Amino acid sequence: MRWSELFIPTLRDDPSDAEAVSHKLMLRAGLIRQLGAGIYSKLPLALRVQRKVESIVREEMGRIGAQECRVPTLQPADLWKDSGRWESIGEELFRLRDRKRADMCLALSAEEAFTSIARFDLQSYRQLPQIWYQIQNKLRDEPRPKSGVLRSREFTMKDSYSFDLDFEGLDRSFALHSQAYSRIFERCGLVATPVEASSGIMGGSESVEFMVFTDAGEDWIVVCPGCGYAANLEKAVSIPAAIEDPDACGEIEKFPTPNVRTIEELAAFEGGAAPERQIKTLVLSIDGELALFLLRGDHELNEVKVAEETGTMDFRPAHPEECRDALGAFPGSLGAVGVTHLPVYADSALRDRRGMTTGANEDNFHLRNVDVARDLAGLRWVQLRSSEDGDACKSCGHTVRLHKAIEVGHIFKLGLEYSESMGAKVLNRDGKEVPIVMGSYGIGIERIMATAIESHHDADGIRWPVSIAPFEVVVCPIRMGDEQAVAKAEQIYTDLCSSGFDALLDDRDERPGVKFKDADLIGFPLRIVPGPRSLAKGCAEFVDRHTGETVEIALGDVVDEARRRLR
Amino acid sequence: MRWSELFIPTLRDDPSDAEAVSHKLMLRAGLIRQLGAGIYSKLPLALRVQRKVESIVREEMGRIGAQECRVPTLQPADLWKDSGRWESIGEELFRLRDRKRADMCLALSAEEAFTSIARFDLQSYRQLPQIWYQIQNKLRDEPRPKSGVLRSREFTMKDSYSFDLDFEGLDRSFALHSQAYSRIFERCGLVATPVEASSGIMGGSESVEFMVFTDAGEDWIVVCPGCGYAANLEKAVSIPAAIEDPDACGEIEKFPTPNVRTIEELAAFEGGAAPERQIKTLVLSIDGELALFLLRGDHELNEVKVAEETGTMDFRPAHPEECRDALGAFPGSLGAVGVTHLPVYADSALRDRRGMTTGANEDNFHLRNVDVARDLAGLRWVQLRSSEDGDACKSCGHTVRLHKAIEVGHIFKLGLEYSESMGAKVLNRDGKEVPIVMGSYGIGIERIMATAIESHHDADGIRWPVSIAPFEVVVCPIRMGDEQAVAKAEQIYTDLCSSGFDALLDDRDERPGVKFKDADLIGFPLRIVPGPRSLAKGCAEFVDRHTGETVEIALGDVVDEARRRLR
Repeated sequence: MRWSELFIPTLRDDPSDAEAVSHKLMLRAGLIRQLGAGIYSKLPLALRVQRKVESIVREEMGRIGAQECRVPTLQPADLWKDSGRWESIGEELFRLRDRKRADMCLALSAEEAFTSIARFDLQSYRQLPQIWYQIQNKLRDEPRPKSGVLRSREFTMKDSYSFDLDFEGLDRSFALHSQAYSRIFERCGLVATPVEASSGIMGGSESVEFMVFTDAGEDWIVVCPGCGYAANLEKAVSIPAAIEDPDACGEIEKFPTPNVRTIEELAAFEGGAAPERQIKTLVLSIDGELALFLLRGDHELNEVKVAEETGTMDFRPAHPEECRDALGAFPGSLGAVGVTHLPVYADSALRDRRGMTTGANEDNFHLRNVDVARDLAGLRWVQLRSSEDGDACKSCGHTVRLHKAIEVGHIFKLGLEYSESMGAKVLNRDGKEVPIVMGSYGIGIERIMATAIESHHDADGIRWPVSIAPFEVVVCPIRMGDEQAVAKAEQIYTDLCSSGFDALLDDRDERPGVKFKDADLIGFPLRIVPGPRSLAKGCAEFVDRHTGETVEIALGDVVDEARRRLR
Repeated sequence: MRWSELFIPTLRDDPSDAEAVSHKLMLRAGLIRQLGAGIYSKLPLALRVQRKVESIVREEMGRIGAQECRVPTLQPADLWKDSGRWESIGEELFRLRDRKRADMCLALSAEEAFTSIARFDLQSYRQLPQIWYQIQNKLRDEPRPKSGVLRSREFTMKDSYSFDLDFEGLDRSFALHSQAYSRIFERCGLVATPVEASSGIMGGSESVEFMVFTDAGEDWIVVCPGCGYAANLEKAVSIPAAIEDPDACGEIEKFPTPNVRTIEELAAFEGGAAPERQIKTLVLSIDGELALFLLRGDHELNEVKVAEETGTMDFRPAHPEECRDALGAFPGSLGAVGVTHLPVYADSALRDRRGMTTGANEDNFHLRNVDVARDLAGLRWVQLRSSEDGDACKSCGHTVRLHKAIEVGHIFKLGLEYSESMGAKVLNRDGKEVPIVMGSYGIGIERIMATAIESHHDADGIRWPVSIAPFEVVVCPIRMGDEQAVAKAEQIYTDLCSSGFDALLDDRDERPGVKFKDADLIGFPLRIVPGPRSLAKGCAEFVDRHTGETVEIALGDVVDEARRRLR
């Protein structure tokens, strides 16, 4: 294509309202424009990138036998009531009413719609397995849309759904997706790490996120360089640095702590204890029932872990009166010693600790000399705190590190969650009706684009991976008045096009500086410049956007050299 | 592909709730499933068709220099308030609120979004012309969704928008689209006729619809076989059969007509007049101001024409009291003789009529001997009635005919409508700021699919045009137990695939009757059957789905013969 026939509105200056590098560069390179809060229009160059990403996704989905479908964005509330998500999802779900006042919603994923096809059209194990997918816009009312298309309220998602007869089948479909996703990200120029993750609003038993490490990420990932363990901070487990405890520990001793309510106050109190020697006791109402959560005084409760451990998102801190009624004291003096009538979850960092201090369940009193193994009964040992940089790996003991990362894909073992609630069953080999075992799998298309920019850019602009660049190569004649040079540029451009390259001819009557700046900003992998000095030697200049390398290539070798570099 | 790896849930029986042929066949052939009222999921075969249609659309849009973009479906109300459509469109527009209670809507077309890009990024005439398009789902809360994907509430539309410096430019962009649309429909196997149309909720000065004549259509088109004139009934003008009037006409005479209120009552009244000799007088309130509309007694007012002529959609019948206050009588005795204080629109069928009867603007009195040219002053001559089959063409006098048709495309000259209301301006050659001249252009993708079925089917099923068939050719081995025949079928299938055909191998272990029935129902253009009798002669059977022709082709000629038939 010719630049003069393309709409590429590059901007000279950084937009004031963008922070993430990819957001700035997508605006400046004329890829996107904001239409409203968290919603973006994609201009022609972005569409070219998007369609290349989609092609890669389609090829890899095809390789694992997935079939493309398309379900509507606008969906009846009834379907979502069947699955239970009409109630369980909050404001993320856009809801509206149609002209007949019927409740509708805009799909943020399509488990319900695909399960509704399955429950009508799948009757027998002979029809399984199936993998159905679509590439389609999704809508999600994000509480804090940010970073341009990295977290927007409307985005394109490849979502797929697998239907198997049993859990072994699900494991196969899940593994196929995992392989396909790895190939997709690799082909798009991304280094994506699969990590253990929480399943959140999709539900199901197990999920894996594909994470690209970059400072623009909003997620934290715990990684063990020793054994390769990797998990989202929401899900990660690890061992905190050990604390030296006294070898033996005397009898529990109650002591007065007037007006001491917080960990800090007890640490400052004469005869109190340092935070890491305290047991923090939190009381939550879980599905309406109280439970205790114990952590080391200097550790914080991770709410995602509470949800994972208790299996519900419906929890809140207990009211002070609820604490008093259940334990005999208000928050500030609570503890688990002697508590047997309520479930007690204990963070693994408390295991085998001795000489600890905790609330006495009597206002203004605490207990010292607590030996966890000796004095606390019936504990449910789990990890309640978030892992920290410097923790030890639970598998190999190596020191783990935290990295910021962007989630570019997420795959879920849904199991029977949707098939049971929505009644999607098949007859198995024995003629018995069984619920279909499902998985769901998502890739954000614009996120791949933006993450590729986060991973590949420099001070001058984007450095697109060849596979998803809007054009693979730009040919820049230096002066449009120089007929001979322009003719050479046209020849090079034509040769490249007819050899199957995705080439752009910068036929604008602009100064070379402007052309080169734009080319660097947009980030075409290769720039070919038939400048006067090169032409005098029968050459054209090749500029590699990734390495910055500039070489002169004989005119007769241009196509071969382009092939060597781009294929 | 292999049938066993594809999800094609054909149904044996006609679905009870479908009326249109295309709706029935798309359900039965396993192309679509209903998800809710007026919303449909597309299964893998439909997606294959859709992607072929989209490819054709993209190629032809590319040929006229159009560039693909994508704007969000979810749009802020503010944009639509800028254009005025937030107010002017009624319940067709899906509206909702986000978590911050901000008004949003779901785009039913994207004039606002593209104009917002233009007003930010187009500054100079040097950037014009531009044609931007997208292929994207649109949402429209249809009052009466019907006929499956022919009129659904969510559908895929190719919508494009042209931006020109002046009206000559718009004419060029409009003509380019007209040519591109004709090529698109022809390539999709449709015979589409461009017809004059009303612009409706898009606004603008002129529009052309592309219509495929079929009984499944919801529109009526007036066509003149003499000169080729064609227009939507909403817009069409034509001349009704002439009525013999008396050569001369005496003085106007007022006569009593007690209790006569309607055309029928006056026709039955002694001394009254046949309907075609009466002037029907209707009073409408147009934007709050009264106006008279005169028609022949046997003709009906076409409301789209009222909107076209008055330039507003905001009109209603006047209340009886308003008529009495303005004209001195209640409806039933109204007329235009002597009326000069209100605008009077007269249907062209009344021109030069003599000896007519009309209300006297005095309750229970009418006037006879009315000579329209002599007795009615200041008439605005327009066509207010709908054209009828058998009318004469206004251009050539030939008898016009009415046909039912499906609208598959619609192109609009918007002019300055959006650029003025939304402030999209450029500097012209003289450095003066001028509003951009715009056009908008739409094609319904699923409608092309369904209309192709309406145009190409028989009692056994669909007969896809080759260009958009889900597969071009199906290879059907007759008995999967016959290893040699299956090997031949595999060979034919592999040869076809490697020669670039989009081929399907029916590898199901089903009876030949089931396979042939499914193939006919789904409508693959060519079926190749390597049956035992053909194979004994070194041949395979070719069955042409369009002609029904069956011939035996030597195995060595299979690919060449397929090429001859399908390319």
